[in-house]
Amino acid sequence: MSAQAKTEPLFKKVALIGVGLIGSSLALAMRRHGLAGRIVGCTRSAESRAKVLELGLADEATQDPAAAAEGADLVVVCTPIGTYEDIGRAIAPKLRPGDIVTDVGSVKQAVIRDLGPFIPDGAHFVPGHPIAGTEHSGPEAGFATLFENRWCILTPPPGTDAGAVEKVTALWQACGAMVTAMEARHHDQVLAITSHLPHLIAYTIVSTADDVESSLQSEVARFSAGGFRDFTRIAASDPIMWRDVFLNNREAVLEMLQRFSEDLTALQRAIRWGEGDVLEDMFRRTRAARQRVLEEHQAGTFDPREPGAPK
Amino acid sequence: MSAQAKTEPLFKKVALIGVGLIGSSLALAMRRHGLAGRIVGCTRSAESRAKVLELGLADEATQDPAAAAEGADLVVVCTPIGTYEDIGRAIAPKLRPGDIVTDVGSVKQAVIRDLGPFIPDGAHFVPGHPIAGTEHSGPEAGFATLFENRWCILTPPPGTDAGAVEKVTALWQACGAMVTAMEARHHDQVLAITSHLPHLIAYTIVSTADDVESSLQSEVARFSAGGFRDFTRIAASDPIMWRDVFLNNREAVLEMLQRFSEDLTALQRAIRWGEGDVLEDMFRRTRAARQRVLEEHQAGTFDPREPGAPK
Repeated sequence: MSAQAKTEPLFKKVALIGVGLIGSSLALAMRRHGLAGRIVGCTRSAESRAKVLELGLADEATQDPAAAAEGADLVVVCTPIGTYEDIGRAIAPKLRPGDIVTDVGSVKQAVIRDLGPFIPDGAHFVPGHPIAGTEHSGPEAGFATLFENRWCILTPPPGTDAGAVEKVTALWQACGAMVTAMEARHHDQVLAITSHLPHLIAYTIVSTADDVESSLQSEVARFSAGGFRDFTRIAASDPIMWRDVFLNNREAVLEMLQRFSEDLTALQRAIRWGEGDVLEDMFRRTRAARQRVLEEHQAGTFDPREPGAPK
Repeated sequence: MSAQAKTEPLFKKVALIGVGLIGSSLALAMRRHGLAGRIVGCTRSAESRAKVLELGLADEATQDPAAAAEGADLVVVCTPIGTYEDIGRAIAPKLRPGDIVTDVGSVKQAVIRDLGPFIPDGAHFVPGHPIAGTEHSGPEAGFATLFENRWCILTPPPGTDAGAVEKVTALWQACGAMVTAMEARHHDQVLAITSHLPHLIAYTIVSTADDVESSLQSEVARFSAGGFRDFTRIAASDPIMWRDVFLNNREAVLEMLQRFSEDLTALQRAIRWGEGDVLEDMFRRTRAARQRVLEEHQAGTFDPREPGAPK
C-alpha cells in the first residue's frame, strides 16, 4: 500500500504476531501513516487470516510465527501473554542483528521473563503497552485512531539499545500516541490498580448479576442504565487475554484486591450501621478523583464503529 | 412559556421540589413538550434559585416546599431520599383532592414509608423512578432528552387511583420514556443489583486507588484509560443522593454485596492458585450478559453537554 512512498517507511517489514483488536488497529494506523513497507499478519485460524487479507490489514497472512518474522525488521507480539514463550521459541532463529521485537501486552515483568530469553544477541527487545482498547475483539474490531491521544508505556530493561527504543517510540508517536517509559515492575503495579482490578471487579459484578434468581434475571438487562451497563461493557473484553493478565500479574493484582476488599468491608459496615457521614465523606473524596482524570484528558474514547459515536 | 397553548397542558401547575439533574431535565422536557402550564421550582440555596430562573427551568422559584405545592396539581419530589419525610410534612396541608404527588427517588419502599403517610385522602401518590442520569449534578446539569428511550418505573401501592397512575405515565411517555409498573419491593431488589451495587463498587475502587502510595498516585489518573476512568465517572455521582440510597435500601444492597463478595473471593482464589480455566469460564459467561444489555437497547446514553457527544 505505502511500499512505494517517496520517504523510506520507519520499518521495511513488520510482522504482527496476533491480529486482534490491537494488532489490527496498529496495522491500520501503520498503513495510514506509511510506517511499514510491508506487513505480515500471523494468526492461528484460517478464518482470521482470510479476514486479515480481506480487510487489507496485511500484505500477507500466515499461521507460522517463524515465517512471519523472517526478514522482518520489526516483530510486534499482539497475542495473549500466555503464548509469549512459544512465540519466542518460534521466532528466535529468524531474528537478525538489529531486528526489533516489541509487544503490546498488559503485563510487563512476565513478558520480559517469558520472551526476553529468546532474543538473540544483537537483536533488540523493547516491551511496550498501549493503554487503549475497546470491549471488542478480533481483526474486524480495529480502527486506525485507537491510539490517538492515548498513552503507550515502554518498559525497556536496563541496557536496552537506545536506538531501538527510539524507533519503537517513533512508531507509537506516529500512530498518535503519547509515549513514556518506566520500570516493568512499576508498570505492573500502576496497571494493577488502573486496569486489572477494574476489569476483575467488572467481571465479578456481572457474574454476580448473572446468578440472580430467574424472577429478577430478565430485568437486570432491561434496567441496566442505572450503572450496571458500564460494567457489562468492561466485562465483555477478551476472555483469554484477561485470563492471562491475571495469571501473569498475580502478585500486584492480589495486593490491590486485598486493599479493595478491606475498603469494601468498611463501606459495608457503614451501610449496616447507618453511618451516613462515613458514606458521604467517601463519596465526596471520589469525586475529586474524577476531576484528576478529566484534567489528564483521559475521560473517554469513542469507538467510531459504535452506533452514535462521533465520526 | 406554554401556558397559552391551544391544547390544555397535562398539568396546570407543576411543583418541582428539588431542581438537580433530574428535576432540571424534567423541567426542560416538560417545557419542550408543553406538559405544564406553569412550573415552580423549590430549592434551598439562593444560588440554585437564581440559576433555575436564569436557565428558564421554572416560572417561579422558592425555598418553601409548601409555597411551591400550593395550587399545584402535580408535585414532583426530586430531592435526596433522606429529605422526603420533611417535605411530606411541609406539603401535606396544601394538597387538595385530585392533586398528584410523584417522585424520582432510586429506592421505592423507603419513599412509600416516608412520604406516603402525609398524602391526605383524595390526593394521590404515584412513586416513580426514571432510570436515567449522568455523573453531573445541579440545575445546570439537566437536558431535555435525558429520559428519551429510558425506562421509568412506577411503583403505585395497591389501591392507587388508576387515573393518577395514567397521568404520571402520560407525563413520562411525553418526555420520551418507556413506562412500566412493578411492586416497590421488587423494584428495590432489581435496582440493588443494576444500580446500587455498581455504584458502591465504583465508589470503593476509586477510593482504593485514591489511597495508594504517593509514588503511584500521579500515574493513576494519567493511565486511567485501561478501565479505571469508567469507574471514576460513576463515582463522581452526587454524594448526598447516593448516601441516602444506601441508607434506605440497606437490606437489598447488603444482600447483593454479600453475593458479590463471595464471587470475588472465588475469583481471588482462582488467581492465587493459577486456575486459568475458572477465570476463562467466568469471563466467557459475562460476555453473554453484555449481549443481553445490547439487545435491550440500553447500551449507552450520550449527554449532549459532554465534549464530543453527538448533538
